[in-house]
Amino acid sequence: MDIKKVYAGSLFDRLMRYAASDYYPFHMPGHKRQGSDMFSIDITEIDGFDDLHHAEGILKDSMEQAAGIYGSDESCYLINGSSGGILSAVSGCVTRNGKILIGRNCHRSVYNGIFLNGLETVYLYPQIMEGLGIQGGISAEDVEKALRAHPDTQAVMIVSPTYEGIVSDVGKIAQAAHDHGIPLIVDEAHGAHFSFAEEGSFPRSALVQGADVVIQSLHKTLPCFTQTGIIHMKKGYLGQERMERIKAYLSIYQSSSPSYLFLASIEGCILYMEQEGKEKLEELARMLEVFRERCKDLKSIYVPGREWVGKAGIYDMDPSKIVMSTGYGKRNGIWLDDHLRRSYHLELEMKEAGYALALTSLWDRKEGLERLFQGLRGADRLILEEMEKGHAKTGSGMERKGSWKERMIRQEIFQERIMPRSVCKIQEAKEKEWEECRIDDCAGRAAADFIYLYPPGIPCLTPGEIVSEKLIEKIKLYDDIGASVHGLKKEGDAKKIRVIKG
Amino acid sequence: MDIKKVYAGSLFDRLMRYAASDYYPFHMPGHKRQGSDMFSIDITEIDGFDDLHHAEGILKDSMEQAAGIYGSDESCYLINGSSGGILSAVSGCVTRNGKILIGRNCHRSVYNGIFLNGLETVYLYPQIMEGLGIQGGISAEDVEKALRAHPDTQAVMIVSPTYEGIVSDVGKIAQAAHDHGIPLIVDEAHGAHFSFAEEGSFPRSALVQGADVVIQSLHKTLPCFTQTGIIHMKKGYLGQERMERIKAYLSIYQSSSPSYLFLASIEGCILYMEQEGKEKLEELARMLEVFRERCKDLKSIYVPGREWVGKAGIYDMDPSKIVMSTGYGKRNGIWLDDHLRRSYHLELEMKEAGYALALTSLWDRKEGLERLFQGLRGADRLILEEMEKGHAKTGSGMERKGSWKERMIRQEIFQERIMPRSVCKIQEAKEKEWEECRIDDCAGRAAADFIYLYPPGIPCLTPGEIVSEKLIEKIKLYDDIGASVHGLKKEGDAKKIRVIKG
Repeated sequence: MDIKKVYAGSLFDRLMRYAASDYYPFHMPGHKRQGSDMFSIDITEIDGFDDLHHAEGILKDSMEQAAGIYGSDESCYLINGSSGGILSAVSGCVTRNGKILIGRNCHRSVYNGIFLNGLETVYLYPQIMEGLGIQGGISAEDVEKALRAHPDTQAVMIVSPTYEGIVSDVGKIAQAAHDHGIPLIVDEAHGAHFSFAEEGSFPRSALVQGADVVIQSLHKTLPCFTQTGIIHMKKGYLGQERMERIKAYLSIYQSSSPSYLFLASIEGCILYMEQEGKEKLEELARMLEVFRERCKDLKSIYVPGREWVGKAGIYDMDPSKIVMSTGYGKRNGIWLDDHLRRSYHLELEMKEAGYALALTSLWDRKEGLERLFQGLRGADRLILEEMEKGHAKTGSGMERKGSWKERMIRQEIFQERIMPRSVCKIQEAKEKEWEECRIDDCAGRAAADFIYLYPPGIPCLTPGEIVSEKLIEKIKLYDDIGASVHGLKKEGDAKKIRVIKG
Repeated sequence: MDIKKVYAGSLFDRLMRYAASDYYPFHMPGHKRQGSDMFSIDITEIDGFDDLHHAEGILKDSMEQAAGIYGSDESCYLINGSSGGILSAVSGCVTRNGKILIGRNCHRSVYNGIFLNGLETVYLYPQIMEGLGIQGGISAEDVEKALRAHPDTQAVMIVSPTYEGIVSDVGKIAQAAHDHGIPLIVDEAHGAHFSFAEEGSFPRSALVQGADVVIQSLHKTLPCFTQTGIIHMKKGYLGQERMERIKAYLSIYQSSSPSYLFLASIEGCILYMEQEGKEKLEELARMLEVFRERCKDLKSIYVPGREWVGKAGIYDMDPSKIVMSTGYGKRNGIWLDDHLRRSYHLELEMKEAGYALALTSLWDRKEGLERLFQGLRGADRLILEEMEKGHAKTGSGMERKGSWKERMIRQEIFQERIMPRSVCKIQEAKEKEWEECRIDDCAGRAAADFIYLYPPGIPCLTPGEIVSEKLIEKIKLYDDIGASVHGLKKEGDAKKIRVIKG
């Protein structure tokens, strides 16, 4: 059934043995374990199979085993994605209407937790990655500064690695939070593989570096079903009460009918990683090194590698995330994504104005990376040919010859840090009366809703923040290049956003 | 892959065709569509496969098709169980700190929604089912009365059918809510099959009877993965703004990485029900009729059928739920459940003091119902023999001969309606300081947490309610007979609950 191998005594194993028994189900689910292999092991909380929200048997044992593997004081399985874990961590660590310090580049679910609990926010802006257009890391100095300015802060939360693989100095940031007597929550949704890697191949996990609550998606970088994850807690700076609160919220934000397929795949994934998975991860690291070495020959597309960490001033990066930087011309990230799909049948994770993003995992094959390299080489040739012939014309950097670096610093608007001023808390703003307003007419107005690009779902504007001319320009630009801008309504030619009335 | 048949053009079909293509995934999930059939179609929101939280393509079409089948104005797929739908319905229909009128027998997720939003609650107590020990229906008259007493109520919410199959007069209750200008939310988690049944075979769906928001679990009674569901909305009394609010909350309470396996199985389940499923449901109705007819010969176990609806004064009942009433002796519901599992390898849904519960679905087989009948006949004989010999002695009703009815009215405590007085809102109570207190010493104190039996997860005490002697007796009794009482802590011999400090 899966994770390539069914471990003896594992939840998968028990489910399969139960499926093969002659027990007749007069319980949910309604498929009665018939109709497919998947249904045959998709049970509910029957005798002997425990209850996720009140674990006392095999699920408790399984989660304790996981905590042992990861080195946490307690780990809980997530079946409503990392989203459910993040909502719970935020709700559990900060009291209603309290204050939280967060990386501005946090995922939408962090903002949802803030909204639900009426929290006051202080933002940490990530450093700017010159030339690349991606958001960088959070600095420990900024955390210290913010905590001095806001001594009533109850928790710090950052995302590391980011969607594009940027890793912050979690150790130092944890230290800053702890010096202040509060816990650090790390959204490590994109870094679950760090926990199983050898030192040097990949960055170290946030948990090992001192974070108190760490949320990892298991499906994003490991072999596990989409919508699964795990939350790790360390008691030291968190304390018993906050740990209990987090667990109480987990049983609020997660279905009371959790999927046993998910639970079994979570356990199976962890067991697999602890055994065969580790070696596969090292293989991946070696494949990626070769791949990046080859990419150095590309002239118009830049694929940053770990050697670049020092130069760029970031703490570390996850090599499994391949940023393919194009510059902002006609042949930009959006074009590259489309080109690779059409001509090479490569489906990427995400495209942005200045780059496209390919995610790899330990189950990637040499053949795939080979095809990606061929695709990039093909794209590179095409761009260079166009540049030679002077074919590319549309308001881009393509008409100019030159290295990727020269072209990249154009259209600074994509890269500029915009820090909107806020007039009230997110929850207050969301509960005010709103109206739709043409985006061109709303400079100076306060937003009534989030505006964010999806993926990855990081807001450029939150409810209660003042819309600036620069932001309007940026949002329009994103929309023009075909990025998916949530919160922007289009009626015919009109582009509107929701602003607070009056 | 599934739901017995893959419909052409369906999401399952598209996923399988995509899996068979040569597209190479440089995106999540990390299993890279390898390792198993299940992984091969477990994708993320890639091009052409839409985005549940921002549906504009095939998911939008699929949900519109579902709305057409069900006759709603809008239906949304649920991937965090009915829990996610219920939280969203409550949060979307009532403003923060507003007032809601709910059936006291609502599921824990309703109370969670109330807690999160700081709502004030007014309770509707279900009628008492004399002799059976199960909770009955909610009366429309009680709803009218409560709305007159609480004109600031913003929504009414009930569960119908209940876990045991009791159906309330949703039509009249909807009328009462609408006369008051507010919407009715129905938790129909246990009645998703009603939507596909012929008049007469099963009760009519809440949606058809006038409810404004209806939440159905798809896995509970239909062939679909555990943790899936659907929420239906009708615009009339709900209005555009509330509908939008509900949808906004759906994208807060549900993972931003929804499982495509779930989404495909939801669509496949609905298509199946619309086609072959209907006839299977009628077959089930006929099998159940035969089964109940045969059960009339049992002497010590009573299996109520639909003919009983009139006598008991309830509006209707779902015949697919088989309540097997035993009385409260040594050979009670807990014993029956154990007996059927051990001797007949029948796994039931739930056991309670006075009865055990078997759930059937359209995929049940004659063989299963035959085995259940044999099991019941065996148990019946055993009980009768013991009664003849006067063997059963332990503080039970078994020592007396007599019909099930005579024995059943003993131990009234299980059946008595306890209506605890509340001193503050659930949210306020949850945020106060608490301490653990021996259950024997806490009469007169206010609870700091929920106390509920699981399954089904209906609280007998909510935070802020005063603990009474009777309730203490009831909680201890439940624990003694081996029911799972959440909120009751056991340390050695001591049983404790959390009460508000001071």
